Order: sequence, then C-alpha cells, then structure tokens
Amino acid sequence: MIKRYTIRTRKEVELIDITRQVAEVVAEAKVEQGLACVYTKHTTTAIFINEAESGLLQDYLALLEKLAPPRAGYAHDRIDSNAHAHLRSALLGCSVAIPVVDSRLALGTWQRVLFAELDGPRERSFIVSVVRG
Amino acid sequence: MIKRYTIRTRKEVELIDITRQVAEVVAEAKVEQGLACVYTKHTTTAIFINEAESGLLQDYLALLEKLAPPRAGYAHDRIDSNAHAHLRSALLGCSVAIPVVDSRLALGTWQRVLFAELDGPRERSFIVSVVRG
Amino acid sequence: MIKRYTIRTRKEVELIDITRQVAEVVAEAKVEQGLACVYTKHTTTAIFINEAESGLLQDYLALLEKLAPPRAGYAHDRIDSNAHAHLRSALLGCSVAIPVVDSRLALGTWQRVLFAELDGPRERSFIVSVVRG
Repeated sequence: MIKRYTIRTRKEVELIDITRQVAEVVAEAKVEQGLACVYTKHTTTAIFINEAESGLLQDYLALLEKLAPPRAGYAHDRIDSNAHAHLRSALLGCSVAIPVVDSRLALGTWQRVLFAELDGPRERSFIVSVVRG
Repeated sequence: MIKRYTIRTRKEVELIDITRQVAEVVAEAKVEQGLACVYTKHTTTAIFINEAESGLLQDYLALLEKLAPPRAGYAHDRIDSNAHAHLRSALLGCSVAIPVVDSRLALGTWQRVLFAELDGPRERSFIVSVVRG
Repeated sequence: MIKRYTIRTRKEVELIDITRQVAEVVAEAKVEQGLACVYTKHTTTAIFINEAESGLLQDYLALLEKLAPPRAGYAHDRIDSNAHAHLRSALLGCSVAIPVVDSRLALGTWQRVLFAELDGPRERSFIVSVVRG
C-alpha cells in the first residue's frame, strides 16, 4: 500500500503536521503488523517526528537557523541561494520508519509526523508506504 | 514480529546500549532476510547507531550539549523546561532501520544500537519490529 | 533481496554517489511495491540523501567540519584520534529507507543516495536490502 499526498506550503520555512494523512494510509492498508515509511522526494524539505507544541515548532526552526544559517558563503549559493535549505534537509533526513502495531501507527502520545518546508512556499508532496511484517 | 521493552534510565542524560534486546527479537523472529526497525515513542529520547566506547559516549553527549544547550531562551521552555531535549531528539531521530541478513542483524563490528535518554531519569520503552524481505 | 557493495574511498572526508548501485538492486529485486534500505556497517561513515551538485558537496563537508571539528579535546581521542568522524556519523545516520513504487526507487528528481566517508581513505562497504510491501 502506497499513497502520495500533495500539500501547499505557505511560508519560506514552516513545519506541517502530517500525522493524520500517515494514519489514514495505515488504516486503509489493513496491515496488522509492519512498517510505515514516510518519505519526501524534495531536497529542501525534511520529515521528522516530535511534539508539535507551538513554542517548540519555533524552537526547531531557530535551531536550524543557528546550525545552518542562510547565505553564509556557501559554494552552492553561486548557483542557487538555497544551500542552507539543503543542509538543513540533510541534517533532519527525508525519511522516517514507524512500526505498525495492531493495524495502527505506533506513535507515542506526543509524537507527530512533521513535514519541514525549508525553501518555500511551494507545492510539495510526500509518500507514505506500508509494508507487511 | 514485534516486541516492546521497558528500561529504567538513571540519569538526566544517558546513552544505553540496547543491542542485546534488538538481536534477541531478530533471533526469535526467524526471518532470514528483512529489516529490523528500532523505535522510541518518547519525544525526549532518541535511537542511533555507533560505537559505544566510554570516551565516545561522553563525546556524543557533549556535542548535543553544544548544539542544543539547555535553557537557551527557548519558546517551549515557557511551558516546560525541556526544549533542548526535544531538539536533541529531533536531531538524532527516533527510529533506525537495520537489515537482517541470514537471520541476524547486519551490524558492523563496532556498531551498537544506542538508546538516548535526553530528559530523565524515567521509565522508558522502545519497540523492535521485524519485517520479512 | 540483499546485496553488499565494496567501494574504495580516496580521501579522508568524501561524499560518494551510490544511487546507481541502489537502483540496480531494486531493479534485480523485482519487487513492485516495498522499501529499500541502504545501510553502512562502519561507525565513521554515513548514508544520507540529497542533491549532489559539486558546490553543495563541499557545503555538506564544511557544515560537518563546523558542527564537529576534528581534535577538539574529545574523550575518545585519547584512544583514537577520530572522535569527530564518529560524531558526524551519528548526526547524519547510517541508514536510509526509500519507498519502492512500480518496481523503482521513489527518488525525487534531484535526490541522490550519498555515502559519506568521514575517516578515510579506506575500503568500505554498504548493504542494500529490499523488502516487499
């Protein structure tokens, strides 16, 4: 079972909670035990899992700004001015694997699947793939 | 095959070698070729793989302290004072996938699966899920 | 379907595009839908996915140099002088999962699978494992 979702991001840098869509694919897949993989095909976006409290959403972005600030003399910026977005994407990763237990995502109470737009706004997409255990 | 383990962490920040438990599930699963996913459901813990030499265990924690220092004016700290633990968890990740080859984990000689407690001490748990290739 | 590749790295720190090898295993696996896992068994290498533009390849390495500089008083360096390589490996990760869709890797237009040599030059290997959905 595999499904592709399209989302429209609204800001240059933004975190979007996509837990509902991931859970939807797992529900449709009718896989009792297995793995769900959430994957972004873009090189200036990322996928990660953590709490989506509004203050924390600001803190993730501030950390990325500190670790990979924009326009800091990057070699790639001679071609395109978004090297910082690629670097942030490489740090966070483009893929997460989540166990499926009793036909449901094994997310913890506070865990949300977050899509990170790092060079928007744009139309973006992500894939959810479920495999049987 | 899926199994949940509970561990009691002893410190605020600590790395625990859980390789034995992960290997145990793979042995029980009797899957010749596939993938093992190790997953933590907590938003202030992480899972990663590397060497567990005692000096290096200190170095990982010192790096996290440098990249995401505690109480550095985070927005989330107005609610809870553990934003740094969430940020460290997001950087390291909550999930790893390891190939299963000839019914065994394909870990390298020096690789250990490490559970990172980032806001302890607490009772914590993790999941090991094995899928067939 | 599982396959192991050996590569000879040429520099101390270097990024090598291994997309061709990963795609080759997926083609041979004849799995219509599933997951491909790319995994390195070494603790001073990493695997990640992003664009392989030549300027950007320099920028990734410069970021790692900044986040985990060599010989910065690490505890592990009393035993071996490569703590920085382990730390960089832990940050980037040793494993990626990529969906397989219609018997092909679901990589985006600009995505390449990159093998990071962080303490070379050496003979290294990586594993590609494909599981059915």
